[in-house]
Amino acid sequence: MGASFESSESIAPGKRVLALSGGVGGAKLALGLSRLLTPRQLTIACNTGDDFEHLGLRICPDLDTVMYTLAGRNNTELGWGLAGESWRVLDSLGQLGGDTWFRLGDMDIATHLARSEWLRRGESLSAVTRRLCAALGVAHPLLPMSDDAVGTVVHSDQGALSFQHYFVREQCRPAVRGFEFQGIETARPQSELMALLGGDELAAVVICPSNPFVSVDPILKVPGVRAALRATRAPVIAVSPIVGGIAIKGPTAKMMAELDMPSSAAAVAEHYGDLLDGFVIDETDAEQAEAIARSGVAVRIAQTVMKTLDDRIMLAAETLRFAAAI
Amino acid sequence: MGASFESSESIAPGKRVLALSGGVGGAKLALGLSRLLTPRQLTIACNTGDDFEHLGLRICPDLDTVMYTLAGRNNTELGWGLAGESWRVLDSLGQLGGDTWFRLGDMDIATHLARSEWLRRGESLSAVTRRLCAALGVAHPLLPMSDDAVGTVVHSDQGALSFQHYFVREQCRPAVRGFEFQGIETARPQSELMALLGGDELAAVVICPSNPFVSVDPILKVPGVRAALRATRAPVIAVSPIVGGIAIKGPTAKMMAELDMPSSAAAVAEHYGDLLDGFVIDETDAEQAEAIARSGVAVRIAQTVMKTLDDRIMLAAETLRFAAAI
Repeated sequence: MGASFESSESIAPGKRVLALSGGVGGAKLALGLSRLLTPRQLTIACNTGDDFEHLGLRICPDLDTVMYTLAGRNNTELGWGLAGESWRVLDSLGQLGGDTWFRLGDMDIATHLARSEWLRRGESLSAVTRRLCAALGVAHPLLPMSDDAVGTVVHSDQGALSFQHYFVREQCRPAVRGFEFQGIETARPQSELMALLGGDELAAVVICPSNPFVSVDPILKVPGVRAALRATRAPVIAVSPIVGGIAIKGPTAKMMAELDMPSSAAAVAEHYGDLLDGFVIDETDAEQAEAIARSGVAVRIAQTVMKTLDDRIMLAAETLRFAAAI
Repeated sequence: MGASFESSESIAPGKRVLALSGGVGGAKLALGLSRLLTPRQLTIACNTGDDFEHLGLRICPDLDTVMYTLAGRNNTELGWGLAGESWRVLDSLGQLGGDTWFRLGDMDIATHLARSEWLRRGESLSAVTRRLCAALGVAHPLLPMSDDAVGTVVHSDQGALSFQHYFVREQCRPAVRGFEFQGIETARPQSELMALLGGDELAAVVICPSNPFVSVDPILKVPGVRAALRATRAPVIAVSPIVGGIAIKGPTAKMMAELDMPSSAAAVAEHYGDLLDGFVIDETDAEQAEAIARSGVAVRIAQTVMKTLDDRIMLAAETLRFAAAI
């Protein structure tokens, strides 16, 4: 670690931080937070609306991205999957005429085989995630938003598409009309997540710079989560995934345009609405600070584009200081 | 091909041969037959009692061994699986704490992923096997004995073990007491197999030198198969899997001893009983010919140990000549 922050700088003793994360963008900030906070101090709850069954494998893209990132095993060249990955299975599968549109590396397949097997044996997704994290050396608690299956459906100009069909197979080309989270009404929020939200150790909730519609909203829509976020005395801080009108990663800006929203940090803040106590925007978007502040949300201007590990740690530290100041 | 046999030597025009096969030993003779007979002339029906679900994958060891062997893709060093195989998935799975007792190579996993997916979509095992064979360039029809699942259970001094647990995990160490083929009573024989057995094109049935108890018996016990074999006018010829009192491959001799049978070619002939019109034994066992012949079964003495491709082709040719002479 090159940065010189100490966890004691930003969080009071005995206090804990909850990060809500989707995939890549969220994982970057989660990694930064994990370098400042101990496993006792930081819990990460992750979107599972992207999860799907493919080739009989239960695949949890966001959980895996965060897990691989925290393990230092993420593939930075591809931006997804594992470093040093190989493609022996998928190459052979293609030769046999099988589906290869979802790129599964050999080591990644091992993760999905293990997860699927343990789930079939009756273990919860939480328990399976704990086992995988332990094997990969991830010490910070990583929680699925729910142990119940939720399936994000993208309603588009090409009809209803399951999320991975929209995201990977169609490469986000269809124009988005809206989203549906199948199973969300009956999904129970993960118990440790709710205990943390309802307890008095919570110092801050950090909504990572993930896609508001398909990464963060599913977490917020699990019954009980939004109410618990409203009820907690801890500040709820979001970091904008939109910088200078574009998304650092993924289709957030494109979705906003298709949903007739301005592609701006301010529009993201408005989307989260009264859930937020604070909002971190990039220096590029400083001129939006006043408008956001008028809605009663504290604003912190920071360098939010995370290119290096130091960027991740500095943004995490800035976010924690902001939370402490609210 | 080094040998100089012509298919016209051994089989009349318009006639067809059916081979019944288990895994490795059977696949060797099936390969020899495939070099002498055209895809129109040779059909191979394969044991599926060894099939099992593992890590959510439907694995058909005997079908795959025959398929990989006919494709020239079998791993001759290991004696199973694919040549040039790699172990990336299984290595990672082991690091994650998953089950690795059943050695699945990366390319082999692709076969199982494709098969499992196509079966889940409602295709029959026959149709799936056709697709896999087509992709691998296997032109000879390869049929599962049934499209219905049959599960071989080995009753042993360590209790009831599913076949692969006995065979791979326990490495055949438990002493065998008997066998059970779960689902066999309601399994329907594969339709092309029955059409061939019931038709007038059949020139010979060759029971390959596979384990009589766990490779051939499951095929014979699929309802209707044994009766059809008795009813056909074509000669039914078995090639002994026992040579000089030992099995060339696998636990046949050990099983015979544990079942209080002599480990001899003659005992295999007796096991098949009145199903046989002819029995091919090795030169080593020539002294058993008379005893076998006394039971009314024609005997051919041949070089049955198949070390090279030429050995396979020569034994296949000898078996076809024997059938033609009966």
